Parts: sequence; structure tokens; C-alpha cells
Amino acid sequence: IRNEDRDFIVKELSEMHYADITEMLYYLNTEDCRYILDSLSPRVGADVLSELEEDIRVEFLKSFSSKELLRYIDYVDSDDAVDILNEQPVKVREEVLSHMQDKEKANNILELLHYDEDCAGGLMAKELIKANVNWTVLQCIEEIRRQATKVDKIYTVYVVDDHDVLLGRVSLKRIILAKDEAKIKDIYVPEIAMVNTFQAEEEVAELMQKYDLEVIPVVNVQGKLQGRITIDDIVDVITEQAEIDQQAMAGISESVEPNDSVITMSRARLPWLIVGMFGGLLGAKFIGIFENELTLVPAMAFFIPLITATGGNVGIQSSTIVVQSMASSPSVQETMAERFFKVLLVAIVNGLVIAGLVFVFNYFLGDSSLAFVVSAALFSVVMLASFMGTITPIVLDRFGINPALASGPFITTTNDLLGLAVYFSVAKVLLHM
Amino acid sequence: IRNEDRDFIVKELSEMHYADITEMLYYLNTEDCRYILDSLSPRVGADVLSELEEDIRVEFLKSFSSKELLRYIDYVDSDDAVDILNEQPVKVREEVLSHMQDKEKANNILELLHYDEDCAGGLMAKELIKANVNWTVLQCIEEIRRQATKVDKIYTVYVVDDHDVLLGRVSLKRIILAKDEAKIKDIYVPEIAMVNTFQAEEEVAELMQKYDLEVIPVVNVQGKLQGRITIDDIVDVITEQAEIDQQAMAGISESVEPNDSVITMSRARLPWLIVGMFGGLLGAKFIGIFENELTLVPAMAFFIPLITATGGNVGIQSSTIVVQSMASSPSVQETMAERFFKVLLVAIVNGLVIAGLVFVFNYFLGDSSLAFVVSAALFSVVMLASFMGTITPIVLDRFGINPALASGPFITTTNDLLGLAVYFSVAKVLLHM
Repeated sequence: IRNEDRDFIVKELSEMHYADITEMLYYLNTEDCRYILDSLSPRVGADVLSELEEDIRVEFLKSFSSKELLRYIDYVDSDDAVDILNEQPVKVREEVLSHMQDKEKANNILELLHYDEDCAGGLMAKELIKANVNWTVLQCIEEIRRQATKVDKIYTVYVVDDHDVLLGRVSLKRIILAKDEAKIKDIYVPEIAMVNTFQAEEEVAELMQKYDLEVIPVVNVQGKLQGRITIDDIVDVITEQAEIDQQAMAGISESVEPNDSVITMSRARLPWLIVGMFGGLLGAKFIGIFENELTLVPAMAFFIPLITATGGNVGIQSSTIVVQSMASSPSVQETMAERFFKVLLVAIVNGLVIAGLVFVFNYFLGDSSLAFVVSAALFSVVMLASFMGTITPIVLDRFGINPALASGPFITTTNDLLGLAVYFSVAKVLLHM
Repeated sequence: IRNEDRDFIVKELSEMHYADITEMLYYLNTEDCRYILDSLSPRVGADVLSELEEDIRVEFLKSFSSKELLRYIDYVDSDDAVDILNEQPVKVREEVLSHMQDKEKANNILELLHYDEDCAGGLMAKELIKANVNWTVLQCIEEIRRQATKVDKIYTVYVVDDHDVLLGRVSLKRIILAKDEAKIKDIYVPEIAMVNTFQAEEEVAELMQKYDLEVIPVVNVQGKLQGRITIDDIVDVITEQAEIDQQAMAGISESVEPNDSVITMSRARLPWLIVGMFGGLLGAKFIGIFENELTLVPAMAFFIPLITATGGNVGIQSSTIVVQSMASSPSVQETMAERFFKVLLVAIVNGLVIAGLVFVFNYFLGDSSLAFVVSAALFSVVMLASFMGTITPIVLDRFGINPALASGPFITTTNDLLGLAVYFSVAKVLLHM
């Protein structure tokens, strides 16, 4: 779009935040992106590369030689460097690592490459300041000075013993206020919250949320300090988890982005559509059993959508409430029995209101013959759907399946079938057929 | 539960993190909670009070006199103090404020009480370190020392001019590494990201996520520094927003917690159940128009649940994908037209697969007479539901309504009705009735 004055572009870009530059790149074609990246200082370019969305970055970096990539990777924090290198072909990865000038960093990256992406080890960065417990404050300041260019943001200084075992931390505030000759030993705070390299990212997120932390140290099984995880990565984990739950509720089986291909999109959506389809076919077979009754009282067919829709809605509401209560704090001052009793009461209230309203409408505005049958069935369906909606997430969770699935097509399909069964059974009994 | 040795309890508690103590309180009755809180130092007690969930805290603090509350409020950060006081009766609030020893803090709290809870002003805390741009580093350190007991965690030092207008920030790292006589003027970083007191909490969350910030300064319309918002409050905003979206998808109209009363629960759930009910009744009326056809071909009724369920599932999937793409980064390298074309292609693929499978099943396993009708209707329903699911969130968003609502009962009900209309129209045409 703008292949004009390079000086002008450089000047403009130098005043922009890297997150804004990244956002701008999404609107440009690969060639222009390339041009802009080249105009940036390697440090800012590195930030932009870290910030890019994964699939776009993969596409974009295909045109890079390992030498060009090398220009930036030195400035990228170790955790982001691992992400970027993991996306590259093995050959590029090896070349970049072997040519890196900062050998210590290359080793750090190599170490981080071993961890799974979704555990604490895969989230952590190696850039941190650590101080030996026997040092003085002055020694600690020297260490900060030494690492100043490498560690962008110092959240806290970690205190370790001679064997690198994490003992605690000391805030920069305390370092500023302490005398130079003071011992770290006397001013540090013993650390309470830390995670192990192998812990799942969800556990890390929970811990950091609970203790309101901006950063958490990561240790190995021997308690040795390995790295740190910052809250911005955890915010991404939380946002992503919320998206996955929403997709589970919507019956989308893989995580999809709007710019995925038609094939990926269809593959993510078809499985649950097919489950729903089989549910529908089963429903058809089931209604088929009552063909004779339907011929006698065709009005029975009118209320099929009302029954299935109500069952579906009640089921989704119930399971969402249960799923959210499982995600948040523990069962607050209520026993399991009290909980179930309340679910029962709410179901009765909802069932009575819906069934009552439908009865009034049917009785006064038309099919009075079926009014009682439909309302009786509706009430039963609300009760049953509440029960199913409440119990399903708990059962799924026991089996280690994401309970958010329970608020999706799974519960709708089950409730459709149960609703039909209830409706036709009630009809058969009450109409003495 | 444990009304035993006070010394033992005090000792145990002193080793626990306040978040753990808070969690423990949820399992105890009010009297025991009271006992434990009294055993804590006011500083830790204040942290526990800030951490408690709102409705539990309201209940708990009812038994407190304003004098007892006063004991803790001095130690609570200003933003949490505002939350706690906002929950109290006006009389208690006034008494606490007028008896606070720290007059400056009382004024700060009074000022914060003016802001809405869900704007930047309502989220910010007054505890921060600011330095005049003309100061030296030594003067800045003096200020940190002066505020040390009041400001728990110093994220960064804000740099202001003589009129308190925010100019930028300087990190503690730079302060440590600078010489005492260095001027703040020469080492500070001009600030880019800041928010206005009136900005919505969602905007603040977006900004902090985009720029990966742990803390953001809040200014008023004149650019004067008013306070700071920390990421832990924003993590709560993000989590809450995700819950609200999920509830919107599930058709729950107010935010509910598992320990809300039966009345609140029912009130939150009934509105959308009633909308669904009217949808169902309309559907009944609609099918009623085709009573004659149904008497002739009762098998038509068999496939009603299949049609409505498929329409509902496809609609929810489509709208969830659109809602998530609206929430994340801007339309990445694709025009609106390309987007719609892809939605169309995915709909065709899904429609063909589902309609095809159903045709095979129906043709070989039974009702071959209706096989073509049902599959033709299914294909149309998938197309229509994809379109509705894609367009509805966009329309809702234009009107300022939370688009997540579109993935809920709203789209299900609409698609049920549309699906029935398509099904019976197709049937009527194809069966030449």
C-alpha cells in the first residue's frame, strides 16, 4: 500500500507500540509486511514477531532464511523464541540455534524445547534475576546491572541457595530501601507460591488467580529454580480456555479460527452435527411407534417442537450453572443434598410456570383436548431435563471429560429423545389409547 | 469446629497465605469465621476481607459494628475498601470514613466512591508512587521510602509534571541502576498506554491484554494521574465476562451463583424459557395449518425433531464462530465477502453430508417415500441456519446487544420456526399436495 518514502515509514513506526505495528501487519500482504519488518530495529521487530498470531507467523516466516530469523531471535524472550522455533522446520531450528551468538540463551532455548506447550515448563521464560541468599544487596544490584539488557522486565528478584534451590524472593522496593551492605538473607521473603515444570497450564492459571500474582517461579522436582511464568501468558491461557468451553457448548470439536480452511471448519463441526442427526433419526423411529395414535390425533404432532425445545433449553441452563459452579470456588456452605434440593425446587417452579402458561393458552385458544396432556408432559420434561442437565457435567467431570461439553449438543440430543418418550407416554396414558 | 487452643490457631494461621485462609472460611459458620478473623493481625484480616466473595462478605459483615470494620479498613487497598464500603449501609459507611485515622486515604476512598463499579475509575486504586519529572533519583527514592508502608506492591513509578499531568513512567530497575543525582527527566520512558476514568472495564481489559501490561495508569480528562489498575482485577473482569457470555449462550438472563436463592434462580431462567415456549406454541399453530397433510402422511411428523435439532445445532455453531471472531483480532487478511463465501461453502459441505447420510438411512432402512423430502428440507435448513447464525450476532452487535445472546435460545427458537416452515413447504411442494 505504501511503497514510498522509507525514512517517513521508519519515523512513523518508531513512534508506534509494537502491538499496534503487529495489528497493522494483519491488513497488509506478505511483501509489505516484510518491508515494514526490515525497516524496524531488530529489537522492535522481535517484539512484533512474538506478538503475531501463530498461524499467520508460520505463513510469514516461510519466506525467511535461518540467517534472517537469527537477526531477531537474539532479542526475543526465551519463551517466545521457543514458540517461534517450534513452528519452524527442524533444519531451520538447528541452524538458528547453532549460529546464535549468545550461547547461554541458545542453551536455555534448547532446554525449553523439551517441554510440552501446555505445561508450566512450556510457558516459562528463562529471563530472570536470581540472587544467592548469602549475597549483599550491592552484589544483587551488580547482578541486576549485568543482566539488565537481557531481562526486560524485572518483576522480583528470586533468592536461591548454593544449589540453586529456590528459597524465596525479594522485591525491588526492598532492594532500593535497603542499605548496600545489607544481606539478602535478612530481607528476603520466603516464597510460598511456586509451580513445578510439569504442572498443567490450567493449574498455573488457577494458582496465579487465587494468589493475585503477576509472576510465578517455576522449579524442578529438586526445587531448583528453572524459570518464571508471567501473567500475560496466563491471561492468554484463561481467554483460550473460555473460548474452548464456548466451542464445547456450541458443539465444535476442534478449536477453529475464522481464517481456517473450509475443510478444517467442516471437520470441526460435523461430528456433533452427526451425533445430532442420529438423535433425530432415533427420534423419528421412536415417533414411528406411535403412528396409529398420530393418525387418530394428528394434533399430537403439533407440540413436538415445544416439548423438545423446552427440554433443550432447560437442560442447557441447568448444566451451565453446574459447570460454572464447578469452575469457581468450592461448594460454599452448602451440602450436596441442599444443592440438589434447590435444583429440584427451581425445576418445580420453572415447570409449573411453563406448564401453567401453556395450559392457559391451549385451553382458551384452541386444542383444549390436548391441553392437559401437553402441560403434564411439559412439567415432566422440565423436571427430567433439569436432572439430566445437573448430573451430566458431574459425571463427565468424573471421567475426565471437559464438563462444558454437557451444555452442548450432547444434552440437547439426549433431552430431545427423553422429551419425546415422556410426551408420547403421557399422551398414551392420559388419552387411554 | 475447633474452639480449642487459641495460640495453636494463631500459629497455624500465621503460616498460611491469606487466600488459603479465605478459602477455609467458606467451610465454617459465621461464628467460627469471626473467631478466626479476630485471631489474625489486622493486616492479614484486611487481605482476607478483600478476598471474600461479595455476597458472603455482605452476610458476614452484617454482624460487624463500624468500629470493628474500622480496624481492618485502614489496611485494605483503596479499591477494595471502596468495594467493601459500597456494600455497607450508608450509616456504617459514613461512620467508618469519618473515623479513619489516615485522612488522606479517607479522602481517596470518598473520591473513588463516586465512580461506577464497571468503569476504569471504579477499578482503580489510589496507592501508587509518583515522581515529579524535575526530581532527582534520590528524591524519588525518598518518596518510595515515605510511601513504603502504604503502597504494598510498586509496579512502576509514574512521572508527572508540576500539574500532576502524567508524562510517563520509570521502572524500579532503572532507578536501581541510575546514579542518585540523575534526573528523572533523563531516565523516564514516555507513557503510551493509559486509560481515562470513564472508560469501560472491557476496554481496559482489552488494552492491557493487547500491550501485555501488569498495571495501567488512570488519568482524568485533563490528563492528571488519578490512580492505577492492576492486572489481577482485570483477570477477574475477563473471567466474569466469559461467564456472562456462557450464561447468555445458555439463556440465563441475570448472573447467578449456585448459592443464590430459588427465586433468583428461577427469575434468571424463566424469561428465555418463556420465549422458547412462545416459539413452541407458534410452531404448534404453524404445524396445525398442515393438519390435513399430516393425517394423510403421518410419517411427516416423525422427522420434526430431526429438522429442528439440526437447525438449532448449526445455528449455535455458526453464531459461536462469529462471536469469537468478533471478540478476537480484526478480520485478518480477509474481506467481508471472502468471509461470507467461506461460511457458505462450509454450510454446503455440512448440508450435503448431513442430508446425504439421512437420505441413505431413510432410503435403505424404511421410509423411502419421504427420504428425498426430508433430505431436501435438511439441506435447506442447514443453509438457512448457517446464514441466520452468522448474521444475528453481527446485527445484535450493531444494536449494542451482547452478541453472545445470539448463540442462545434466541437463535434456537428462530431456527426451530424457520426449520418447520422450510420442512412443511418443501414437503407440500415435493409431495404435490
